[in-house]
Amino acid sequence: MRRIRIIGIGAGNPEHITIQAVRALNSVDVVFVPDKGAEKSALRELREEICRRYIEHGNWRTVPLKVPKRAAAGDDYRGSVDDWHAALAESYERLFRDELGEDQTGALLVWGDPSLYDSTLRIIEAVRARGLVFDYDVIPGITSVQALAAAHRLVLNRIGEPVTITTGRKLAEGGFHDENGSTVVMLDGEQAFAKIDPAGLDIWWGAYLGAPQEVLASGPLAEISDEIVRRREAARAQNGWIMDTYLLRRHES
Amino acid sequence: MRRIRIIGIGAGNPEHITIQAVRALNSVDVVFVPDKGAEKSALRELREEICRRYIEHGNWRTVPLKVPKRAAAGDDYRGSVDDWHAALAESYERLFRDELGEDQTGALLVWGDPSLYDSTLRIIEAVRARGLVFDYDVIPGITSVQALAAAHRLVLNRIGEPVTITTGRKLAEGGFHDENGSTVVMLDGEQAFAKIDPAGLDIWWGAYLGAPQEVLASGPLAEISDEIVRRREAARAQNGWIMDTYLLRRHES
Ligand SMILES: C[S@@+](CC[C@H](N)C(=O)[O-])C[C@H]1O[C@@H](n2cnc3c(N)ncnc32)[C@H](O)[C@@H]1O
Ligand SMILES: C[S@@+](CC[C@H](N)C(=O)[O-])C[C@H]1O[C@@H](n2cnc3c(N)ncnc32)[C@H](O)[C@@H]1O
Repeated sequence: MRRIRIIGIGAGNPEHITIQAVRALNSVDVVFVPDKGAEKSALRELREEICRRYIEHGNWRTVPLKVPKRAAAGDDYRGSVDDWHAALAESYERLFRDELGEDQTGALLVWGDPSLYDSTLRIIEAVRARGLVFDYDVIPGITSVQALAAAHRLVLNRIGEPVTITTGRKLAEGGFHDENGSTVVMLDGEQAFAKIDPAGLDIWWGAYLGAPQEVLASGPLAEISDEIVRRREAARAQNGWIMDTYLLRRHES
Repeated sequence: MRRIRIIGIGAGNPEHITIQAVRALNSVDVVFVPDKGAEKSALRELREEICRRYIEHGNWRTVPLKVPKRAAAGDDYRGSVDDWHAALAESYERLFRDELGEDQTGALLVWGDPSLYDSTLRIIEAVRARGLVFDYDVIPGITSVQALAAAHRLVLNRIGEPVTITTGRKLAEGGFHDENGSTVVMLDGEQAFAKIDPAGLDIWWGAYLGAPQEVLASGPLAEISDEIVRRREAARAQNGWIMDTYLLRRHES
């Protein structure tokens, strides 16, 4: 039976890769590489470097996958995502049929961990729902949340208290309401941290975590929010892209 | 200067270890190994196996650290934890002084990732607060949350929705109130999932994740809650210890 391995590759440092992932990589015939255009080329380069560095046998090849652009969300975020997944599922199904022999193994390399704000697993389920029969497994990877914590030498939770991982969109909509807990924000293209009431909050922010360009900042949100906005903009201009994540928590009194 | 490396080793599978962690392990002179008694001996064995398998040079040694038992929490959970950290900080300080040369490197191996429900980083900060001068860094590791997701081939979040990581204690106290989000429960010694209103909830449960004894169950909480309680008890009796984690989410209609 065809087999697909969905492999978490960590969040920016090629050495985030696990031994389990290295072994999985060495079991594959084909690596499917999504091509999301220039903006994401840094990610593509990391994927390629990981394959070159860690795949030890010679008989594997990469197959590029053109990723259709997602329609602007407008009012129907869920709907636009569903349509996009359906289009991707169709492309993947064709590639799996055409590029993988009946007893071959393909890999999809996922940034961070496949379980966190990533569509690969949903797309794979959609490919199966279309009727293609194959086996698949998931290899966990270091998330950007853990890369953030490690870089700041931070424990995400207060003792015995919860941690919420959410999106910039949710934070901007709802504000911060996490009395004893901690909130990690991902996917924030609009600097939601600068739009909420900063009183009493601390922030630990990081961009390009694990990568050579890594930038960190932390302190009382009221004091460093502007500085983070400035540094974020400068880094984005310099690198042509940015990925950042941060933790917010009420200052302990 | 003395240096301490705090290394996440993953949640039960020795191959969860990252290349970064393997390199860090190979830079150390001393591995400090907490000894929490029989109950935790499975964890100690994993630590030892990882050192044997991945440390390639011959000039390192392990130094055991007796971990004092934490006083029963009673009403003051935070207070009992603080006292316990202070006692541990004293032991670590003595060990770092006595067992590490001025320019040597020590390692502390942490189950899962050091950023999630683990006291090592707080203890290290307490050792520094006592005046000992040393440098330290953190190497992220695969958490049990990711091991749970990978084993179930699960995405933790609904599209664009938050994920909360909390404790059994919190769930038992407060119940489940997470309309669109997902809740991961850790540190649940009292099967809180069986004490909340199960109507409309799905559960993905896993014990000994990543380890050979791994057990999984998933389905509507109302239907499988009793079965999980039974299987959990049987596994605990058989192995002498158990660690389990689960995700709860409202069934999508
Ligand atoms: C589509 S999500 C993918 C998350 C990924 N699956 C993970 O486990 O980290 C992308 C978001 O992850 C965060 N992110 C990923 N890599 C990052 C990095 N190296 N530094 C900072 N943030 C990162 C950013 O918030 C970004 O918007
Ligand atoms: C003190 S916390 C440490 C968590 C760890 N730092 C991590 O990153 O996973 C211990 C809790 O983690 C969860 N856990 C750790 N390892 C596990 C495993 N292999 N299988 C299931 N749950 C696990 C359980 O909920 C357990 O009560």
